[in-house]
Amino acid sequence: MKAKVYVTLKPSVLDPQGKAIHQAIKTIGYPSVADIRQGKYFELNIKEGLSEEDARQEIQHLAHSVLANPVIEDYKIEIEK
Amino acid sequence: MKAKVYVTLKPSVLDPQGKAIHQAIKTIGYPSVADIRQGKYFELNIKEGLSEEDARQEIQHLAHSVLANPVIEDYKIEIEK
Repeated sequence: MKAKVYVTLKPSVLDPQGKAIHQAIKTIGYPSVADIRQGKYFELNIKEGLSEEDARQEIQHLAHSVLANPVIEDYKIEIEK
Repeated sequence: MKAKVYVTLKPSVLDPQGKAIHQAIKTIGYPSVADIRQGKYFELNIKEGLSEEDARQEIQHLAHSVLANPVIEDYKIEIEK
């Protein structure tokens, strides 16, 4: 089983890294990009023998306590068979 | 219009960052995670007035030449209305 975790800064939090990328790509010519924000992406392999429900619960806990900082970041989880 | 770009290391490329995360979460108790790889995730806002086809082409070019290093990384693009 595979799990994917997407971590993004909350919309209210400034993203200086994204701003830097945006500034850089504007100077080399991508005028149609209005804004860009960078996040993190994790691909996890889950050992066999776990139900999808249990896996989701464990990954949820892992994302909340380790992969993301829930004070300033949102996260989204996808479980794939 | 929104675009999402996912950048991941190619499967044949070692991911020391992912290995470090995996080692760390094993010690604090997530035994069912077999492997973890970290990638990057970009959310782009595209200015109005561009067709989806043109937007995809521009983002494809941007991802290939700026956001990802195609020698060691794969990327995936999603365009959202």
